[in-house]
Amino acid sequence: MISESLVHLGEKKSGIRELFEYGLRQAAVVGKENVYDYSLGNPSVPAPEEVASIIRELLEGDSLALHGYTPAGGAKEAQQAVADDLTQRSGDTIRPENIFFTCGAAPALVAVLRALAVEDAEFVAIAPYFPEYQVFVSYNGGKFVEVPPDTKNFQVDIAAVERALTPHTQAVLVNSPNNPSGVIYSRETLTALGALLERKSAEYGHPIYIIADEPYRELVYDNAEVPYIPGIYRDTVICYSYSKSLSMPGERIGYVCIPDSVTDSAKLHAAVAGASRAFGHVCAPSMMQRVIARATGLRPDLEAYDKNRHTLYNALTEMGYECVKPEGAFYMMVKAPGGDAHAFSERAKKENLLLVPADSFGCPGFFRISTCVDPAMIQRSLPAFRRVLQD
Amino acid sequence: MISESLVHLGEKKSGIRELFEYGLRQAAVVGKENVYDYSLGNPSVPAPEEVASIIRELLEGDSLALHGYTPAGGAKEAQQAVADDLTQRSGDTIRPENIFFTCGAAPALVAVLRALAVEDAEFVAIAPYFPEYQVFVSYNGGKFVEVPPDTKNFQVDIAAVERALTPHTQAVLVNSPNNPSGVIYSRETLTALGALLERKSAEYGHPIYIIADEPYRELVYDNAEVPYIPGIYRDTVICYSYSKSLSMPGERIGYVCIPDSVTDSAKLHAAVAGASRAFGHVCAPSMMQRVIARATGLRPDLEAYDKNRHTLYNALTEMGYECVKPEGAFYMMVKAPGGDAHAFSERAKKENLLLVPADSFGCPGFFRISTCVDPAMIQRSLPAFRRVLQD
Repeated sequence: MISESLVHLGEKKSGIRELFEYGLRQAAVVGKENVYDYSLGNPSVPAPEEVASIIRELLEGDSLALHGYTPAGGAKEAQQAVADDLTQRSGDTIRPENIFFTCGAAPALVAVLRALAVEDAEFVAIAPYFPEYQVFVSYNGGKFVEVPPDTKNFQVDIAAVERALTPHTQAVLVNSPNNPSGVIYSRETLTALGALLERKSAEYGHPIYIIADEPYRELVYDNAEVPYIPGIYRDTVICYSYSKSLSMPGERIGYVCIPDSVTDSAKLHAAVAGASRAFGHVCAPSMMQRVIARATGLRPDLEAYDKNRHTLYNALTEMGYECVKPEGAFYMMVKAPGGDAHAFSERAKKENLLLVPADSFGCPGFFRISTCVDPAMIQRSLPAFRRVLQD
Repeated sequence: MISESLVHLGEKKSGIRELFEYGLRQAAVVGKENVYDYSLGNPSVPAPEEVASIIRELLEGDSLALHGYTPAGGAKEAQQAVADDLTQRSGDTIRPENIFFTCGAAPALVAVLRALAVEDAEFVAIAPYFPEYQVFVSYNGGKFVEVPPDTKNFQVDIAAVERALTPHTQAVLVNSPNNPSGVIYSRETLTALGALLERKSAEYGHPIYIIADEPYRELVYDNAEVPYIPGIYRDTVICYSYSKSLSMPGERIGYVCIPDSVTDSAKLHAAVAGASRAFGHVCAPSMMQRVIARATGLRPDLEAYDKNRHTLYNALTEMGYECVKPEGAFYMMVKAPGGDAHAFSERAKKENLLLVPADSFGCPGFFRISTCVDPAMIQRSLPAFRRVLQD
């Protein structure tokens, strides 16, 4: 007697992972250099060198303190460093107690979702969205509600969000810079969204929270602005991860930030702690917390990502592909010629060109390209992009 | 609209933590050296020196590989190392694929519990038990069923286990070496338990699993035997953590091992992966996985724990306290003079002697002592133990 739905979830691979594994098999047949894999969103730039130096320094200190339990919400020094950094950058006042460290953004999101998953709770995601949101919501007591994409520029169709809201809506998931589009929601977009949510919260008599999933916050190009959402809409909870910004996705270090301005912030903080405790959270990895305490000022070297972004955008649009130029993250959404992204992705596979159809991101008719790849692979892949377009 | 039960869980501190925090406050008043804190089970022996050397070596290698995502179940080399180690020590055949790395034993337990939490599922814990079991079971869809302790020797009252079993029993939680008693379940005890579960599994027509929670497996004294439970009862799943054995509780690294012999092992493995995915597990901390890949042979320095065990057992029994001598872990259960452990603990607090009443471990009338403390504190505390006995 084993939970069938969890067996199913454990056996079901994401389309991205399937394509990636197909690529590995294909590499064994045709050679690694002849497979053009744009499937995974895995940082291709190493962690800043300072990370290794900080770890070496920490290893000189007391082992029991370094590897010991921290409080569930985090080591005081790590909470303090994050609070100071957020305060300085946002102009808001964030206290150490507003920060709850987690094993990455995924459990941060799950803790917030579960904290808000009262009876009949609905959670709204704006397409295109990270496919795992659907898993996180539906396996933690919520109903997943999808807002169709605004495919013109991948901002937010505010009227479509309004149609998705009901008295059961507990939160809207906002992911900007966005995976998979690379688009940053503009201040205008977020202001309109905030105004809508304020109006509907008042109408329903309870807050509709924004859950701001921001692992790509530091990955922006051309000095684009990433607006601080709690400054625009008070009922905003931030979920963050250092996976992308410090190129350490395997280390599982991130946090939930619940500013004091959030309605019932203390209760929500307690519920996030309770939800985390319920799924076995004890603390975030202790040494990495100490790294973060000294590394909040570090930024990744974005030059390689930026170059790839230009190369791919310029080459593809020149060939006749249609795409919105990303301003952040390391993804790009491209319109599937012919309109059927699955069929196009299958044709591309024959050229050993691995493109993820964006259907699972709630955005049919498009495919996603990860631009965190080897620049030489981009050059080798361009003829394949051209051929599959002419098929 | 926030989940009230999770708010409650997040706000509610364990009795252990409350006592510990009381100790910190009291230390500020009477001086740290005059507070005798036996509350927390925090390793007091540093990680083996090799851990720091391994990390330094790893930092010389490729940063992207070191800090990058691993597969959800773990890096192949880490799975292989654990499988080899278990195979060699148990005589069983454990494959790398039987190992699923987790962020410590707590999420390992939760994943297994959730995988088995079908409708009306019941999970049996044998007192004295780790209090958090109750949280893990009841907040993940199961009913918590308690078997009263065998207070003579803290082995298992098999007849009491039989009375606790029903057709809804999905698993029995077995924690040996035991927190809080320090007792190791003997081969005889486990054989009797296995025979009972085999008989009842046949009667009910479905397996009753043993979930073996074994973070203290390597902390044993006088060469005591810790029987390999899957060798005695085939439907045994192991949950392990390196928190205590390598003195790195903050690093959150452990695993689930589901041997091939377990009924529906592949399905159960998938459900554990699915459950983990549902609560936001992506992978266990990647650098620590690489440490484990090279550290399965390391053992903690047990001499200090062993000395404390002798000192406390000898001193307390000489004073007239009654306790069962622990063979493993770093805990000891002591009978509360007068029979009311809460009242006794309150009296002890007046002497700044912090003893955890074992009621929350399902074992009223006893208190728990953590023996992972400074030996000098033990010496300073003995007069207080004597005074509170004479009160």
